[in-house]
Amino acid sequence: MAVQAPEQSADTAATAAADVSLGPAVALSCRECGARNPLGPLFACEECFGPLEVAYDLPTGDPEGLRKRIEAGPASIWRYAPLLPVPADVADQPNTDPGFTRLVKADNLARELGVAAAGGTLHVKDDSGNPTHSFKDRVVAIAVEAARAFGFTTLSCSSTGNLAGAVGAAAARAGFRSCVFIPHDLEQGKVVMAAVYGGDLVGIEGTYDDVNRFCSELIGDPLGEGWGFVNVNLRPYYGEGSKTLAYEIAEQLGWELPDQIVIPIASGSQLTKIDKGFKELIALGLVADKPYRIFGAQAEGCSPVSRAFKDGHDVVRPVKPDTIAKSLAIGNPADGPYVLDIARRTGGAVEDVTDAQIVDAITLLARTEGIFAETAGGVTVGVTRKLIEDGLLDPSLNTVVLNTGDGLKTLDAVADAARPSATIRPSLDAFRAAGLA
Amino acid sequence: MAVQAPEQSADTAATAAADVSLGPAVALSCRECGARNPLGPLFACEECFGPLEVAYDLPTGDPEGLRKRIEAGPASIWRYAPLLPVPADVADQPNTDPGFTRLVKADNLARELGVAAAGGTLHVKDDSGNPTHSFKDRVVAIAVEAARAFGFTTLSCSSTGNLAGAVGAAAARAGFRSCVFIPHDLEQGKVVMAAVYGGDLVGIEGTYDDVNRFCSELIGDPLGEGWGFVNVNLRPYYGEGSKTLAYEIAEQLGWELPDQIVIPIASGSQLTKIDKGFKELIALGLVADKPYRIFGAQAEGCSPVSRAFKDGHDVVRPVKPDTIAKSLAIGNPADGPYVLDIARRTGGAVEDVTDAQIVDAITLLARTEGIFAETAGGVTVGVTRKLIEDGLLDPSLNTVVLNTGDGLKTLDAVADAARPSATIRPSLDAFRAAGLA
Repeated sequence: MAVQAPEQSADTAATAAADVSLGPAVALSCRECGARNPLGPLFACEECFGPLEVAYDLPTGDPEGLRKRIEAGPASIWRYAPLLPVPADVADQPNTDPGFTRLVKADNLARELGVAAAGGTLHVKDDSGNPTHSFKDRVVAIAVEAARAFGFTTLSCSSTGNLAGAVGAAAARAGFRSCVFIPHDLEQGKVVMAAVYGGDLVGIEGTYDDVNRFCSELIGDPLGEGWGFVNVNLRPYYGEGSKTLAYEIAEQLGWELPDQIVIPIASGSQLTKIDKGFKELIALGLVADKPYRIFGAQAEGCSPVSRAFKDGHDVVRPVKPDTIAKSLAIGNPADGPYVLDIARRTGGAVEDVTDAQIVDAITLLARTEGIFAETAGGVTVGVTRKLIEDGLLDPSLNTVVLNTGDGLKTLDAVADAARPSATIRPSLDAFRAAGLA
Repeated sequence: MAVQAPEQSADTAATAAADVSLGPAVALSCRECGARNPLGPLFACEECFGPLEVAYDLPTGDPEGLRKRIEAGPASIWRYAPLLPVPADVADQPNTDPGFTRLVKADNLARELGVAAAGGTLHVKDDSGNPTHSFKDRVVAIAVEAARAFGFTTLSCSSTGNLAGAVGAAAARAGFRSCVFIPHDLEQGKVVMAAVYGGDLVGIEGTYDDVNRFCSELIGDPLGEGWGFVNVNLRPYYGEGSKTLAYEIAEQLGWELPDQIVIPIASGSQLTKIDKGFKELIALGLVADKPYRIFGAQAEGCSPVSRAFKDGHDVVRPVKPDTIAKSLAIGNPADGPYVLDIARRTGGAVEDVTDAQIVDAITLLARTEGIFAETAGGVTVGVTRKLIEDGLLDPSLNTVVLNTGDGLKTLDAVADAARPSATIRPSLDAFRAAGLA
């Protein structure tokens, strides 16, 4: 159990719960003991300190009607509002309206990885098309609606970079003050993008885990009063945003689940929520029930879940991250144990790749499909290749690989591999001499 | 007439025309003399050397059916395939599938600019959500289909950066070799993004206009045989991609034209094609006929069209660009005269802003709407503010402002304005001392 449990105000939560209207969300249920807690800014079970997740009263009984309603909705995650902890009029509120990103049928990549020859298909879910170019816009958009419902005035988070930008942008648009915390040594693109929205951005001298611990302290302190930390006291709502990846993938495959999916692991939350989303779609009758395998992907320099998987352990031993995949550099992943359980239960696996393999995979994806991924996308593509080579991922099936971020934010990772072929004077002779014609 | 006219092979074009199937496109018509030329890789009229544009046999007669067909189409520019020079099965071909980007109702920005108080509305069309994060993906996607139809094997272009990335990505995915030419001193983000897709990238020692001249030479040389230059010999098709901005804006406004629109000017092509798109929508009965005003926006450091507009001239005198808005730094804009005509005919204007005003406008848009624009977006937002102050743009009407690119590609422009508020040790005392709580 890696979720930390600083003080949380049950009073606030109880007060808020009375008039909170978050669509089909009815309670927060404990993933450990199953106890039900009221909707509020809670992140740990009042009974056992276990992590909480949103429980719903979902619209069952008319899958065809629900499907039509979704298909007629906006080209954003709000098309799935009936399945999310958000008010019914959410699309009319100022928010960044993320989602409904491209699902790219990656035939070129499938050929390179031997998937095409084996009769399978490969799709890349490209979340770089989101407003701040990472999947974090999804989770933050949901947290914003919870923050509104609970009356918070400041939005905050600890972040490895992508989340900082997503919170800054969403807060600006939705009319919140923001104050976000990042490790002080992030990539320039992520720093500028986090600061440009006009909120406060604080660099912390330490790793992401240090930043996270600091935020947990702050939330228990009067200094943090009125603050909604999207990934702490709003975490149960925030996490639900990742379900929309599952919904979109299924809808974009023609209301069908993939056979296999490869998901990056930072805290592990995204992977668990995609599993939750798939299960909901089955329960609602929106897709046919079928087995699917979930694979987790880490960078070797921060691979506590992969190590635990390979060692057959149920618990995850924290590590000190050292990898170019900074957006995945969480050494103490809160949802690690749940990830292990899901990978084993579905017949998947957890694997990791080296920094060099990450760079190779970024350029592989770029030159085959024209998708310029962040290091996290290099991790999933690299792990996919490795899993196929090792016989753990079946190339004859239909596989979806997530790209959750944007290459423009991690330029340094590929700067050596992506240079001009030549620099010349503007003359045909000079071009001829360069030997590129 | 700034379109250069190096050699073009009428033979190739004539051969290609026989079996070319580009949907509703039927010919290339000259914008100067009106002569019809066959569909082919032509860029200048065979009669008078005037610029060519695609002529269509558009699906008139059943606007309601056409509207329904569009609305049921994919969430990309291919929903408008019946109005574009592309084959009917275009959505099944490998391409980057750009478009259908967000139209953001910018109420916060409207308040800051006095639009809300005057009873008007403001929308920002945010094209940073495209696959390579600029509107160039639209025009390149169309050029790719033309290149396929004409049997080219290499895709090329001269570029100020955005186009290079768009061509690299689209070529990789569509199975073309690419070789693109850029000024050697572009922003790092644009260089890496252009190179990462694995094609050849050539830095040219000179300005964009030098690069452009070099490409015109190359296309007339045996070295360039089999090469489709998206913005030279495929330019008539390429340009049509900008019409999709007009279509999307109208559809996203509920099949209605805006009263006013502010468009950045580089070559000026985009502005002329948006006007063309609006006129087509009216002619097809997809929107009600109504007047609209088109405004052009330039950076003061490259403002030949703005200067001509203010001086009451019909021709545009070339300038040597010197501005941070490098994606608009075309000193000799091919479509300048057409832009002047459209701005005057529709009751619009052309205006320019300084580099400092561009940076201010980027941060204004970021802190009000959570949109991180490229310098070109700073130009349109800055010009919008200036036009309102000068009484040239009516704040009581409905206005759309284009953001055609992404802030991550021009980080240097705002690096000084977007810094962390503080860097601290991970302790509450340190945070308290920073004075940000």
